Amino acid sequence: MTDVDSKTYVVIMAGGAGTRFWPASRSKLPKQLLPLLGGDKSMLEHTVSRIAALTAPERVFVVTGESIGDATAAVLKDVPQANILREPIGRNTAPCVGWATWKILQRDPEARIVVLPSDQHIENHAAFVLCLQQALAAADSGYLTTLGILPTRPETGYGYIELGGSLEGSAASGARLGKRFVEKPSKVVAEQYLASGNYLWNAGMFFFRARVMQAAIQEHLPDLADGLDSLMRDESKLAEVFPTLPSISIDHGVMEKASRIAVVPGDFGWSDVGSFLSAWELAPKDAAQNSGEALFIDGSGNYVANFGSEKTIALIGVSDLVVVHTEDAILVVPRERSQDVKLAIEKIRAAGDPKRVL
Amino acid sequence: MTDVDSKTYVVIMAGGAGTRFWPASRSKLPKQLLPLLGGDKSMLEHTVSRIAALTAPERVFVVTGESIGDATAAVLKDVPQANILREPIGRNTAPCVGWATWKILQRDPEARIVVLPSDQHIENHAAFVLCLQQALAAADSGYLTTLGILPTRPETGYGYIELGGSLEGSAASGARLGKRFVEKPSKVVAEQYLASGNYLWNAGMFFFRARVMQAAIQEHLPDLADGLDSLMRDESKLAEVFPTLPSISIDHGVMEKASRIAVVPGDFGWSDVGSFLSAWELAPKDAAQNSGEALFIDGSGNYVANFGSEKTIALIGVSDLVVVHTEDAILVVPRERSQDVKLAIEKIRAAGDPKRVL
Repeated sequence: MTDVDSKTYVVIMAGGAGTRFWPASRSKLPKQLLPLLGGDKSMLEHTVSRIAALTAPERVFVVTGESIGDATAAVLKDVPQANILREPIGRNTAPCVGWATWKILQRDPEARIVVLPSDQHIENHAAFVLCLQQALAAADSGYLTTLGILPTRPETGYGYIELGGSLEGSAASGARLGKRFVEKPSKVVAEQYLASGNYLWNAGMFFFRARVMQAAIQEHLPDLADGLDSLMRDESKLAEVFPTLPSISIDHGVMEKASRIAVVPGDFGWSDVGSFLSAWELAPKDAAQNSGEALFIDGSGNYVANFGSEKTIALIGVSDLVVVHTEDAILVVPRERSQDVKLAIEKIRAAGDPKRVL
Repeated sequence: MTDVDSKTYVVIMAGGAGTRFWPASRSKLPKQLLPLLGGDKSMLEHTVSRIAALTAPERVFVVTGESIGDATAAVLKDVPQANILREPIGRNTAPCVGWATWKILQRDPEARIVVLPSDQHIENHAAFVLCLQQALAAADSGYLTTLGILPTRPETGYGYIELGGSLEGSAASGARLGKRFVEKPSKVVAEQYLASGNYLWNAGMFFFRARVMQAAIQEHLPDLADGLDSLMRDESKLAEVFPTLPSISIDHGVMEKASRIAVVPGDFGWSDVGSFLSAWELAPKDAAQNSGEALFIDGSGNYVANFGSEKTIALIGVSDLVVVHTEDAILVVPRERSQDVKLAIEKIRAAGDPKRVL
């Protein structure tokens, strides 16, 4: 385990509010604030716990949306309020990473930064920490570094990173040069990537010296750099400045264009927990493979999640179902059709009642 | 249609609070107060609407429990408050029928009374009203009269009435003598009953002159008669007197013992709506045989009932399920296993948490 390092800052991107977990996973119940994998802890809390070995809570920053800022702060008691950065509007990940980088540079010009999504699951904690250490070593050598997940299937839902040669220097053991970032591929291409062994999944985890990222943003996204400079001069202008920042991902805006990119291949049981099916796979289950707080009678393989008020939820004689309760909705869908929550959203939108899915 | 008849009183027994419709159908949400068959109207409201042709609302009495008295009164705007009789404790149907009879006799010694359960479904309204008229004619002739439902299956869950000979007098056309009341039979016996054509289902509907019922109670349940006499002398003593009344059904206590019993065979699409399966069968359904207010996507034959706060309920890719929501519970069960809600109740009781099923 790495000792707590006073130069290491962690930035957790916690602004998402998608619809794959409808009826949860909306503006009020975003995925990262849900205990999707059972127990009481949200995905975000698990993420923060996971990096406890890297640095102290006062050097953890969380970038989130204004509308969920209080809810986010409420679950992170140890993180200082001032470290919860509340975007008045989502502008994709480049302004998010940039804002945190500029803020941290004010505090420590020598800082190094770990950027992590807030809503991923890591099975093998020790292997993960080892990769973080390798990635930080590469970052210390001046590389914009990312973790690449060893693919286990020809996934078409993720971006990929093509591996290049080795890095110079023993400090960067485990790291490779990043040759290029590629967008979500077709099935055929994804199969080629998988077979080649040379392409890794881009999991949105980044490691860099703050100054290196600042320079890269100044070079590749000068408008963003200017906006962040003006924001730092007067943070009370956040609501005016932030919406003017270019809305672009850090991958597109910086990583694809930068010259010194490193990749640390990782194999630590990673999942982006992309659906209720995935949540069921990862959550604790009873002997009948049921997951969640419910009365399960004569049924197996069910996933029950209650994100609303306390209720007795009884499943009798049904199997392989997802049952989700929130304050304003109930979903029942076969586990294997978890992706089809989008059909409900489409139907609600088509009925002209969009507030029910926002 | 019978004209509104100033001597005709209707007594609706609305005290039930069973568990066959758990998580609804408990002390706070008894079956008769639920719109089990779709729409906004509760079973009780349908029952009251159904007898509008028989008499005026000021001659409708509803006997219910103290705990659901207000909820009952709230859905029956046209029935005078004074006609809502609130039992401080359930003592089965003999005290219920007796109390209403004594009350009505105070108002009109020549009254005739129709006693109806509050939670049944009648498909053919015209045929039903015809039977009511025939039964009232028999009651006018001095008979304690009941409707007997023509059985359609060897049901073991109901009591039966064996038919006797014809009544004398043309006023009683359609009615037959009631030979005996029999308890819920075994399957073998029920099949014999069905084959014989001589046994009808006892649906708990009674017709009598108030004085005739009073005399029968005085003869067969003298303790009940005495208790009711004392209650009428001082109705403020309800909470003391009512619990001392004998707890017995009107069937056992009076009908089985009385000598002049008449039965009107009825065939009007009767159902006691005994389970969610039965409710689904009777409720309005869409083209895919789904019933209820829900988003039904790629599924058929589902029954959704929301007795709690407003919610979007989405069923995606599931069929033949019952999904019920109340303020404190959610149930998911295959339609054909509707009876198995009792398994949930048993499990909750075994877990020592009985308040969740009361």
